[in-house]
Amino acid sequence: MGKIKRKTELSFKEYTEGILQGDRSVLSQAITLVESTLPKHNDLAQRIIAHCLPHTGKSIRVGITGIPGVGKSTFIETFGLYLTQEKKRSVAVLAIDPTSERTKGSILGDKIRMEELSLEPNAFIRPSPTGGSLGGVAKNTRESILLCEAAGFNTIIIETVGVGQSEVAVDSMVDFFLLLLLAGAGDEIQGMKRGIMEMADAVAITKADGENIVKAELAKREFGNAIHLLPPKESGWVPEITTCSSLQNKGINEIWETIIKHQELIEQSGELEKKRQKQARKWMHETILYGLKENFYSNEQIKSTLLELEKQVTQGKKSPFAAADELLNTYFKNSS
Amino acid sequence: MGKIKRKTELSFKEYTEGILQGDRSVLSQAITLVESTLPKHNDLAQRIIAHCLPHTGKSIRVGITGIPGVGKSTFIETFGLYLTQEKKRSVAVLAIDPTSERTKGSILGDKIRMEELSLEPNAFIRPSPTGGSLGGVAKNTRESILLCEAAGFNTIIIETVGVGQSEVAVDSMVDFFLLLLLAGAGDEIQGMKRGIMEMADAVAITKADGENIVKAELAKREFGNAIHLLPPKESGWVPEITTCSSLQNKGINEIWETIIKHQELIEQSGELEKKRQKQARKWMHETILYGLKENFYSNEQIKSTLLELEKQVTQGKKSPFAAADELLNTYFKNSS
Repeated sequence: MGKIKRKTELSFKEYTEGILQGDRSVLSQAITLVESTLPKHNDLAQRIIAHCLPHTGKSIRVGITGIPGVGKSTFIETFGLYLTQEKKRSVAVLAIDPTSERTKGSILGDKIRMEELSLEPNAFIRPSPTGGSLGGVAKNTRESILLCEAAGFNTIIIETVGVGQSEVAVDSMVDFFLLLLLAGAGDEIQGMKRGIMEMADAVAITKADGENIVKAELAKREFGNAIHLLPPKESGWVPEITTCSSLQNKGINEIWETIIKHQELIEQSGELEKKRQKQARKWMHETILYGLKENFYSNEQIKSTLLELEKQVTQGKKSPFAAADELLNTYFKNSS
Repeated sequence: MGKIKRKTELSFKEYTEGILQGDRSVLSQAITLVESTLPKHNDLAQRIIAHCLPHTGKSIRVGITGIPGVGKSTFIETFGLYLTQEKKRSVAVLAIDPTSERTKGSILGDKIRMEELSLEPNAFIRPSPTGGSLGGVAKNTRESILLCEAAGFNTIIIETVGVGQSEVAVDSMVDFFLLLLLAGAGDEIQGMKRGIMEMADAVAITKADGENIVKAELAKREFGNAIHLLPPKESGWVPEITTCSSLQNKGINEIWETIIKHQELIEQSGELEKKRQKQARKWMHETILYGLKENFYSNEQIKSTLLELEKQVTQGKKSPFAAADELLNTYFKNSS
């Protein structure tokens, strides 16, 4: 948080007016508020989100994933500049990365690497908060999407590192999921091993330039074969495989056209509305689960007995189920 | 439950004595008790498990997964008969299958198909309970493992259908995870797409007989290449790939030898103890989470407002976060 300049706290009115006017500094502070763990901040954040709600939902939400080294930040910079400059769209880039270690390496680094995009008046890049559980980070990102939409951004990019569970979280936030893959030895693994392949609405083989072009085309064919063996999507959409070069600005427009084509398909079929409704219900239930866990593990009685019971379980003196029951009984007695 | 003959309820003493004597009928009734959702049954079940606890942990716990059609039940029958007859081991087969639809098709069917194994005095086959959430089913299976161990079974086989999350649950219960794959077009997908490949300690290509042998050997080579690209296991264990034929009883002993080799490695390195301790802690926390959810969603106040709030969320009238907060507030106020 060191880099974000602390201002005097804003009022509810200043927040909501600032956001709805598209003031990026206020938007940024509102996201900081959303990320705060203080209860009074949460109350204010929820009031702000409730006020912004009628102005949300009108963007295209795109998830982008790929393992480190795939060229994700370079891609997002090129893609973002294409969207802002050629397509006159406004782009907000958010990140989900529950591992603070990686965050320091990739996402904060991204902010610096996406230098050109960050100077773009129609772009907003928000680095991922460091640390925190996936549940917490996912909740914050979901709330941030709504705030960005209320601030007028019509394209939301959610970026995540290919580390497993975070893709599942992103999949429940976006309309379209783009998987970036690198051509070369072992790349069958990158996308397939995490179950990401099934979520992808499109796969782009990156760095398809110079000597890499042949390899990239080969990979494209291989993935094309593989992806057709997967069960079809509910919408009837068949994932597209493309190659692209962020450096040479090649294949970027094709990817955007694919996204638009997909969006039109699911909009017309009513799938988009259904998908977002389903996502909203999922967000609600996950927020509940997160709240239940938070409340339980921050309970003083639980905190004072948890370690001892965990020890007994580890030593085989108590069954995990009995220990869990004991803690649950303590908790429910304690809070009633 | 129609097939299980209802007996008069047993006492705590009858249960524990019966289990520790290896009485399979009592064991079976105890598992039914574990699966019951009645609070009084749960209390008794927990007392029984606590009593059995010193007699648990001495088995080899093996998870077996693979998509429908891979020949899982035939493999388990052949493997189980090999273990009971050739190796003089006692084998309990449990199943995790949270989808009741599939259960009817596969697991109950398995019980019939594993006819020979079910007649074996040293084998115990328990069909999966129909329906229920994965959390509930997983908890029951974990408890059943302990009961089977207390009843003297030294080999526990946990079987699951390759449907995603249930493998993750099984992975947190076993010492060794065996993935069954079918040779043929598109089989790269079977194991890789679910992230199962990473969990597997061994992969067996099934149905390697007759005309299939060549295909199976080819698949073995392909998977061998693929699996070596995955990050190495903490224990230093490199997953082995074999072919087998359940019908011709080929390759079955190699698989068992692999399991034994792995078990010796992790036992000597202390990895097994660490793994089981970690699993026990995980079981505890998952049981807690399950209990929190159960309590929340069965709360009368919550039940009466949940649908209405879900509707408002779906219609975009309320943010999912505000709705969740509202429900959490109702719940915490209500129970305090």
